[in-house]
Amino acid sequence: MGETEIIIEPGKQDIVFKKVFDAPRDIVFRALTDPSLVPSYWGPAEYETTVEVMEPRPGGRWRYLQRGPEGEFGFHGVYHEVTPERIVQTSEFEGAPGHVALETAMLEERDGKTHYTAVSLAGSVEERDAVVASGMEGGARELYDRLETLVEELAKQPA
Amino acid sequence: MGETEIIIEPGKQDIVFKKVFDAPRDIVFRALTDPSLVPSYWGPAEYETTVEVMEPRPGGRWRYLQRGPEGEFGFHGVYHEVTPERIVQTSEFEGAPGHVALETAMLEERDGKTHYTAVSLAGSVEERDAVVASGMEGGARELYDRLETLVEELAKQPA
Repeated sequence: MGETEIIIEPGKQDIVFKKVFDAPRDIVFRALTDPSLVPSYWGPAEYETTVEVMEPRPGGRWRYLQRGPEGEFGFHGVYHEVTPERIVQTSEFEGAPGHVALETAMLEERDGKTHYTAVSLAGSVEERDAVVASGMEGGARELYDRLETLVEELAKQPA
Repeated sequence: MGETEIIIEPGKQDIVFKKVFDAPRDIVFRALTDPSLVPSYWGPAEYETTVEVMEPRPGGRWRYLQRGPEGEFGFHGVYHEVTPERIVQTSEFEGAPGHVALETAMLEERDGKTHYTAVSLAGSVEERDAVVASGMEGGARELYDRLETLVEELAKQPA
């Protein structure tokens, strides 16, 4: 597994995630935008994720349901931009309504590898810090490791 | 004209706008969400604003064109949430593509007046400071004064 770099600077409102995938960009983009693939990596493995709606285009909506030991939680948002270079979307955890984050994923291909950078921007430093305190870091590492496994499987399949 | 309070704290990524409108919330909400009313207040008076698309509902898109002495510029985004209490949307100035802001407008009615608070959240402190340096403050005061004029006119009309 490649390392997931997570950058949390004090006093800032964002969290930055960086990862290098050993696959071309179109494969990583497909993993991020194909609704049938999302449940295999989104969220911690012990939770079951269902894609209720996912329309990866400007103005499209998304809503995922996550079922775990504590019950079922919804997450939803809308897409502002969806291109192989950039995905910009809003995100709201329905367990804490009213806190909307702006998430930007940037994908850059170099020498057959995809350099992925995602920025999650919270409404305030306090909201950002609450997300960090909730144990987000472990969940995010698990998500990106699972995404990496999926990307490697997709890369092995005949085109 | 009521004062528009603009809060720009050093090192932060957002700009906060506060204004009290002497009208019930449904009138302010109507002014903010009726496409036919937007050109009368959006942007500086010397520019002509055209609403190309405006779908004020979750997943709806918006795009305004502003024509002025320097030519025509587009602004666009998508709506995450639209209720009389809260409008959450993304916003991108097409003259500087790639810089997406998250804009939240909160409307609270007290004693027949509407207390309006808007937060514009930029992708970084540098992006926020560039917006401030561009003379945003004067433009915003003009926008909110024009919006106030419109709201007062709407409030005078028979229901």
